[in-house]
Parts: sequence; C-alpha cells; structure tokens
Amino acid sequence: MDSDYGVPRELSEVQKKRTLYQPDLPPCLQGTTVRVEYGDVAIAADPAGAHVISHAFPHTYGQPLAHFLRKAANVADAKVISEHPAVRVGIVFCGRQSPGGHNVIWGLHDAIKAHNPSSKLIGFLGGSDGLLAQKTLEITDEVLSSYKNQGGYDMLGRTKDQIRTTEQVNGAMASCQALKLDALIIIGGVTSNTDAAQLAETFAEAKCATKVVGVPVTLNGDLKNQFVETTVGFDTICKVNSQLISNMCTDALSAEKYYYFIRMMGRKASHVALECALQSHPNMVILGEEVAASKLTIFDITKQICDAVQARAEKDKNHGVILIPEGLVESIPELYALLQEINGLHGKGVSIENISSQLSPWASALFEFLPQFIRQQLLLRPESDDSAQLSQIETEKLLAQLVETEMNKRLKEGTYKGKKFNAICHFFGYQARGAMPSKFDCDYAYVLGHVSYHILAAGLNGYMATVTNLKSPLNKWRCGAAPISSMMTVKRWSRGPSTTQIGKPAVHMASVDLRGKAYELLRQNSSSCLLEDIYRNPGPLQFEGPGSDSKPISLCVEDQDYMGRIKKLQEYLEKVKSIVKPGCSQDVLKAALSAMSSVTDTLAIMTSSSTGQAPL
Amino acid sequence: MDSDYGVPRELSEVQKKRTLYQPDLPPCLQGTTVRVEYGDVAIAADPAGAHVISHAFPHTYGQPLAHFLRKAANVADAKVISEHPAVRVGIVFCGRQSPGGHNVIWGLHDAIKAHNPSSKLIGFLGGSDGLLAQKTLEITDEVLSSYKNQGGYDMLGRTKDQIRTTEQVNGAMASCQALKLDALIIIGGVTSNTDAAQLAETFAEAKCATKVVGVPVTLNGDLKNQFVETTVGFDTICKVNSQLISNMCTDALSAEKYYYFIRMMGRKASHVALECALQSHPNMVILGEEVAASKLTIFDITKQICDAVQARAEKDKNHGVILIPEGLVESIPELYALLQEINGLHGKGVSIENISSQLSPWASALFEFLPQFIRQQLLLRPESDDSAQLSQIETEKLLAQLVETEMNKRLKEGTYKGKKFNAICHFFGYQARGAMPSKFDCDYAYVLGHVSYHILAAGLNGYMATVTNLKSPLNKWRCGAAPISSMMTVKRWSRGPSTTQIGKPAVHMASVDLRGKAYELLRQNSSSCLLEDIYRNPGPLQFEGPGSDSKPISLCVEDQDYMGRIKKLQEYLEKVKSIVKPGCSQDVLKAALSAMSSVTDTLAIMTSSSTGQAPL
Repeated sequence: MDSDYGVPRELSEVQKKRTLYQPDLPPCLQGTTVRVEYGDVAIAADPAGAHVISHAFPHTYGQPLAHFLRKAANVADAKVISEHPAVRVGIVFCGRQSPGGHNVIWGLHDAIKAHNPSSKLIGFLGGSDGLLAQKTLEITDEVLSSYKNQGGYDMLGRTKDQIRTTEQVNGAMASCQALKLDALIIIGGVTSNTDAAQLAETFAEAKCATKVVGVPVTLNGDLKNQFVETTVGFDTICKVNSQLISNMCTDALSAEKYYYFIRMMGRKASHVALECALQSHPNMVILGEEVAASKLTIFDITKQICDAVQARAEKDKNHGVILIPEGLVESIPELYALLQEINGLHGKGVSIENISSQLSPWASALFEFLPQFIRQQLLLRPESDDSAQLSQIETEKLLAQLVETEMNKRLKEGTYKGKKFNAICHFFGYQARGAMPSKFDCDYAYVLGHVSYHILAAGLNGYMATVTNLKSPLNKWRCGAAPISSMMTVKRWSRGPSTTQIGKPAVHMASVDLRGKAYELLRQNSSSCLLEDIYRNPGPLQFEGPGSDSKPISLCVEDQDYMGRIKKLQEYLEKVKSIVKPGCSQDVLKAALSAMSSVTDTLAIMTSSSTGQAPL
Repeated sequence: MDSDYGVPRELSEVQKKRTLYQPDLPPCLQGTTVRVEYGDVAIAADPAGAHVISHAFPHTYGQPLAHFLRKAANVADAKVISEHPAVRVGIVFCGRQSPGGHNVIWGLHDAIKAHNPSSKLIGFLGGSDGLLAQKTLEITDEVLSSYKNQGGYDMLGRTKDQIRTTEQVNGAMASCQALKLDALIIIGGVTSNTDAAQLAETFAEAKCATKVVGVPVTLNGDLKNQFVETTVGFDTICKVNSQLISNMCTDALSAEKYYYFIRMMGRKASHVALECALQSHPNMVILGEEVAASKLTIFDITKQICDAVQARAEKDKNHGVILIPEGLVESIPELYALLQEINGLHGKGVSIENISSQLSPWASALFEFLPQFIRQQLLLRPESDDSAQLSQIETEKLLAQLVETEMNKRLKEGTYKGKKFNAICHFFGYQARGAMPSKFDCDYAYVLGHVSYHILAAGLNGYMATVTNLKSPLNKWRCGAAPISSMMTVKRWSRGPSTTQIGKPAVHMASVDLRGKAYELLRQNSSSCLLEDIYRNPGPLQFEGPGSDSKPISLCVEDQDYMGRIKKLQEYLEKVKSIVKPGCSQDVLKAALSAMSSVTDTLAIMTSSSTGQAPL
C-alpha cells in the first residue's frame, strides 16, 4: 500500500490543466533574498490566561512576531537572511483532509529548493502514524507533478489529528532526531497546531535541534484569530457546498413541495454554514452560536422553523431550504447536557447498551423522547477531543421529524392551513472535503508553504505561518509568523464531566462572532431570505472566467489585516517618539502627555474589562 | 406566488456570464428556411406490439420519420416550409426538473420569433396543474433574460408528471382550445412523452387543431431508443455527481479508513450510475440490470461487497467507494417481490400499520429480518407509476449494515484479518437536479427547442423532437422528428399485482444494455478499479477551458446516429434501383438478386427471432 503514495497517476483534462497553474508569490517573497523584521513580543489575547501559558511554554511563549519583507524594504532593523545552508525538513498532514493541503508542500518544496538545491524535503507517509514510524517519502518534482493544485491528502495520507501523549511526543522527537530534521512542518487545524506548539516547547526543552512550524489548514474555518484570517480549504469547501445548496434552492423552487434540511460539515463552529448562507441565500440558517447565546431549546428551534413554514405557506410557498451546522447539536443546551452525561458514562467504562439506564431522570426523559435513530447516534463514543461524533448525528433528521409532527398537529387544529409539510434531509460534507481547491486556496496554501520555509530559515520555533490582508489582491498580501502560544487561551470552566481541557492552554476553535460584520450581513438579509426566495447561485467552482477569483464573503467583509495594523501602530508610536524629543516645546509635550494618558487609560479599562469575560 | 414566476432575478457572476452564452445551431437549422424530408413510415421496434400500438393510435401511428435539412440540401423530394403564419404555442414542464429545461423554451422562443414575430409562446405556470387551470405566462425576451442556460424549472414551475386520466386529458384539450393553441410542447421523460402521444391521438380523434410535440428531457437518461441518443440533463447530472464521487474517492484515499456507499438518483435504470462510474472510476458499482440479469439476492450482493472489502484489505487498503443506483432495490428479486406484495396491499386499501401483518409468510420473514429504518421506507405508498418511492429507500444503508455485520463476523471467525469495516452512506440526487446545465445540455436543449418549432411548422402531430449524431461536433448534428408511438412497446407480463401497465403501449424506460459498449468499457476496467484505486477526477463542471466541451462517455462510445444510418440505408436502396434498371445486363441482375435475397433472408430471420424475445 505504501508504494502507492506519491505515485504519478492518470489525470483528467481539468486536473491536467490545474497541474499547470502556477500560483504567484507576493512581492515580499519574490527572489531569493527575504528580510525578516521582528515586531514586539506577542502576548496571548486573553491576559488572564497569559501567566498559565507562559508557565506551560517557558521556551516558546513571549517571542516576537515576525514579518517577512522584500529585500529592498526600507526598514532599518530588518535582518536579511543571507545564509541558506542545506536543510532537512519533514512535513506531515495531521489535521483532517482539507482542499489545498498539497499546495503547502509544493510551496515549501519550491522555497527550499530555490534557496539551496541540496536541501531535502521529507514527507511522512500516513500522517502522524508515519511520523512515529519514520515512514517517509522524499518530496521531489516528480512526486509533486500530479498533486499540484489537487485536492485530498492522498499524496502522503493522514491518520490521527493528535500528537499529544508522552509516548507520541517522544516518538516524534525520536523520528526528528533519527532523520536529522532541521524542521518539522505540521499541517492541520486547532488540535494539530496546539500539538505543534507543545512539540516545539518539548523539543526546545530537550535541546532537540528540530524547529516546529504549524500551518493553518482546515476546512472548518475555525482556526481564526488576530493573526489568522482564514484557513486553507475553507474557501473551497464553502464554494462546493454553496453550489450544491443553490442547486437545492433551484430544485425547491422548481418543484415547490419540499423543504430541504441540509446539515453542513464544519465541526462545532458554524463558519461553513454562515459563509454558505451568505453565498447562496437559503431561506434559513440556524447557527450554533445563536442558539447557544439565546439558550434555545430543541423545541424553541422547532417552533421557529414551524413558524417560518407557516409564514411562507401564507405566501403560498410550500418549499424551502434550511441550513443546519453539524455542531448545532452541541449548542442546544439540553442536548449538550445529555451528551455530556453520556460522555461521562463512557468515561466510566459503562457499555453502550447500559448507558441509557444509568442516565439521570431528567436526561433519561429527554433520551426516551428522542427518536430511535438519534438515540443510537448520541450514544456513539465521543471523539478524541471529547466532542460528540458530530458527523454521525443526524440533527437535520431530528429537526425535520419534530417540525413535521408539529405541522401535522397545527394542520389538524386548523391553525396551519397550508399544504402537508414534506422534508428531505441531506448531509453535505464528505462530498466536498476531497474537492479540487479553488484558486484562492491554491494560492494561499502555496504562499504559506513558502512562508514556512522562511520561518525555519530564520530559526524560529513554535510559530505558525501567517498570511494576512488576504481580502486584498495577492500582491498586497503580508507574510509573517506568530508564536502559536500567543494564539492560545485557557479554559477555566467547562460544563459536564469533560474536564480534560480545563486549565490547559490550547488553540481553541473560534466561534462565529455574533458581533462581527459577516453575521451582521447575514441578519440584514434574513427576513427577505426567509420570505422572498432571493436564492443566489454562485455556480460550480470555476477555474477560469467569472467567479474563479472570488474569495469567501465572510473574509471580505471583516476588518482584517491585524498584522498590518499592528505594524501601523508601531509606526505611530515611533512617530510620537520622533516628534516629542527632548527639546520639543512645552505645548507639544503637554499635548502628547494628555493624548497618551487618555489612550493608555482607555486601553487599560478595555483590557481589564475583557479579563472579566469568560474567554470561551 | 404566481407573480414570482418568470420574474428577472439577481444573478451571481457565473450566472450572468452564462446568460450571455449563445448556443450555436447546426447548419440544417440556420437561416429562416428549413426543408423537411420525410423518410419511411416509422414502425415500432417491437414487431409483436405493433398491432396493439397501431390499434391504440389509429391517427398517429404509422407516420413517417422527418428529417430537417438545409435549404441548399440536394434532396429531390424535400419540402421547403415557406409559409410561416403567426402561431400560438403552449409549453409545459411535465417531467421532473432536469438541467437544461429552460433552454428548450428559449430555443423554441427564438425559432418562433425568427419565423414570425407575431407568433406567441405561452408558458404554463405550475406544470400540468397550470395547463389544466389555464395559468399562463407569455414568454418574452425579458422573461427569458435571467433563465438562459440556467438550471431548474423555476421560470414556470412544475407539479405532476402525468396527464393521463380522462379528466386530465379533457382538461388539457379544453385549455388548448380556449387558448387557441396551434401546438402544445411537452417537456419530460418516458411518462410525459407517453402522455404526449396519447394527447396527440385524442386531439386528432376529436379534431382539436392543437398538435402535440414531446421533448426528451430527463436527468435519468432512461428515455433512450433508436431515435433518442440521450436526454437533456443527463450530462449535467453525471458531471455534477461524478465530481462529488471523485471528491469522495480522493477523500477515501486520503483518510484510508472509510468505505463510502453512495446511492445515485436515476429511477429504475442505472444509466446515471454507469456514466458516473465511467467518469470517476470508483472501486465498485452495482448496476440494477446486472443484479436482475443474474438474479442476485441481497445476500449475494452483500457477499460480493464483503469479498471485495476482504480482497482490498489483503492489499492493505481499508477504504473504498461503492456506487448503488436508487433502482437497485427493485432489481433484487426478493425485495422486489416484497415490494409488490406491499404494493398490492396498498391497492387493497390496507393501512400502513396493518400491512406487515398481512404479508405472506415468506415476505413476512424477509420483512422482519430487515432493519427498522428500511421497513418503514418499504411501506411508503408507491408512486403514481406503481414503482416504489426509490428516492426514499436507503438501500445504501441497508447494504452497508449487512456488510458491516458480515465483516464483523468474518473478523471474529478470523477469516478476515483487516481493520474494522467503517461505512459512511450518502445519497446523491437532489443536490445535482437543480444544477446549472453543462454546455452540452445547453446546446442540446436549445437545438431541441428549435426542432420543436420546425415540427409544428410542418404540421406534425404526436412527434418527439430528435437530435442525433450527438457525439460528433454540433455542426454535424442531425435534426429530425419521430412519431412517439414508434418508440412504444407493450408489456405482455409483469410480476406481482402491478398489472396496470400490461397490454398498454407506452414509452418504457430503457435499461442499461448489458451487451452495449458502455457496459463493456465498464467491465474492462472493473477489476483494476476494484483493487488498484485508479480514481479519476473530472473536476467541477467547467464552462470555460478544458473539460467544458466534454460529453457523456456512454454517449461517445456507443454506435449512434440511427437517423443518419437509416438515411444511409435509403441511399443504398436507391443506388441499387438506379443501377439495376430494365436493360441492365443479366449478370448485374443476377448479382443483385442473389445479394438481395441473402439480405432479405438474414433480416427475416433476425426480425422473427427478435419477436421471440420478451421486449422488456
């Protein structure tokens, strides 16, 4: 089987054309000489957690941000990296497959070889298992040839998300040492990047020479913070799914008799569902974050949908499309509590057959109320991060069934006078995960691959490769690196018995920001979407012509470019310093003091109030 | 609600670009003058049914084929249609939505207006219901503007497939007369075209002036016969689904732990599954036609899959992709028999709750053996054509469950030594049905629209619009028309109590031809597909660049162009006549007689033996 990895394969016409596509590099990475400028030391966004993080990451917390600049860039203290000794670099797919992953490897390969053709890039076969077992494949032009701009992780394969236990961490270190790796590049989402940070710290502690770099690649779009605007794969997933959702909308409007309930892959957060809703304008989308914030029960949600069905029926519309994120089930308070009880019983070693009899009276009553199919799904053993097996729980079927029961009841009572309610359920996920990456994901991943090289060339450890200002054209993209530990937060409480994560710093998944612009845009259109069928069809993912250069709407509407703005602030501070030099007038000093005192007071208040908030 | 029909709507970038795409016309339809040449009288392919058909269709059976030719075409007895009085034409979406349907209307509109700007095209709103209720919308350039080259049937909507009962037929006639229609164009599949033929006959009998024309539009690809090479929508559906299947293959190969069981929409026949398999090379596809021909039981199929899983595991492959046509359930003998019993009890008015207790002991044993979810689905009331609700029966889940049970058993017994079998199930159908049509479907539908006009301009009744030689470039396409009644066959037997169709001529759906070239191609590759993962990814449907001009593989490998070859034969016969004229030599006459006697003997034998075969 291993012999199949990286083997050139037969490609279709479209695939062949795509292998010929060469992503550009932003100006800062062009040529063989790149400067690195170090910013201030990066701190954790959650000040209250900072001391826990600094304690857990003594070697890798408190490092500065890094910005990569053109050789010609007019920055006084930027350092030109001029030495490029031959290096040995390992790369591994840790997170779940996400479109564009192959391009990270391609970009890294091109950067490595451009700076020193004797350097070697070593891919681990079979993901984290291959890392521990030292199963490798040297990445060459030939290996890459049929995987450029292609979906999937099949060039190398993957197994587990996590490299976390002492045994795994030691195994990874042994592999890095045995293979004499100068750096290990880990491709994945929040879990894999948390592990990357831990590996970096452990390696530094043990004086292992291998530097660890993380690359943000996950279709869920939930690795998102001040430094990371979006992840590789999110754009493709949303485009492929939006196409299918739009097809369903067109279908619903053509037949005028079905409600389509569509569950979207995307783990706990609802980023994919939000973006797809912005692209395709279905009648309704129920975000997990809204449900959690409003503490809506399953009955509240059912009623909300039923009222929508009824309002539409009054306009003679007996069809519709409703999006449901797969994480919704964990956002519904009573279902989450039930899942936590089940999880706790799993933890105590209670067998699946016996769990239902050991539930608390309250949880048991809810459990017995639920249809048989969903009971079985709720009883599934949780995933390695203690979350439920979201992809296996058919929340869309549960809701469709509850809505149908309620609509039949209303029909009987005469409060609903429309046609009989008909629902058809779908789960959209696996069918998009292996898709050919969009141009944006191809470009973004390829550039991140290059950035990874510059991080290791600068000798940085425990960093994540970042590209910001992504909503602007590629020639305006900023490349940099941020310590992964500064993206961490510390959970101080957690419902239910799942206490494993409490107190441990981790890169946690980001929820949809209900105060953000993308959500605001969704809400602006929500009532016309609900009642007027203003369906929008972005069409199938195109590689040429209109639509081929589009980016996620949620990316484009947000104020982004944190890295650029951090730099801007530095410039202001420098400017103040240069104006208010000893010898300046009293008035200038007075004005400066007054303004700065006001700024620092405001920031102090904002910073302290933010500590009052639970970070998650 | 009706006010929403045909309303211009907001389009995405890709949609806008597509509305600007103008399909070409083949040379024979260019310009405003078209000649029509009549071929021989068309007979039914099934000679044994011919007298039943001629009896049922006294006015419309036994009409000649029609070929549309360029004005300049050098054919002696072709008739130039030079009179183009203003006409009033109605058009209705009868069959289920299929990508490209809107383009039939657009093509018809353009042809009508090009020949007489005073002519009117009237669309029926809400499909067959709208036809009966005389709900109409005049089709204009403005109405068409945002629906050109777009998917769905939402410009006009649709309701039922059938216009069959006396009440419906009379209602349709009343509408045609009230609206003074010169012609009624019916868009749909086998059911709708059977009804079109019946309407044509009834109208002719009643001296109603409206001519009826059918247009072959169905995603299932099962309206296929000597005159019809493929249907509008089939190409798009197969492309959209093949993309998704390919994504699943890439995903399976990346994670290496799942078997994906994918059920394909497509009704009873397996054309969609066959074409998608040819495009994407999944590990296995189980065609209903194979199962029926070999009389495989559900246990045989389970064993076949289990053996495949085991063989793959021996090559260290623990993943795979298996396609299952939705019609499979009706091809499995014992399940079909069970469905027929249930159907019979439905017919006797037995309520769903009581059906299981009234099954025969044999059927009851099978029923009780099946998992709960599938029992409920089997009990669903059958569709209007007496077939089971195929889209609702999750055969893929049934098979996955049976395979899992068997693999666990083999694992326990030690006969299987691979990893634990994991299946994930999907149903691909609704998500493709509303898709934006491929260039091929846009072109084909647009040309069929034009052909429909020339049929009605020639005053033909009960014909279907045909375009043949489709695998060649558009400028080689042949346009014509064939009496729908000559596409009919007569079922002389049927299993189970569903006897409604026995003895009645109908356009029956075509099964996959197990002696055809497409099936041969599938079988050639099947063992390497099974074991070697030679997955092929055609990529997302493209409108520009490579892949955008591709056509269904099953269309391209078959010997097609029946209409062209029928004409070729005529030419040969004419040539013989012109050579063997009175006065020719004895030798020439002798040679001709000998050759012709041999030809006629051979054909007589072939024709009589074909009557020995059951046509369905």
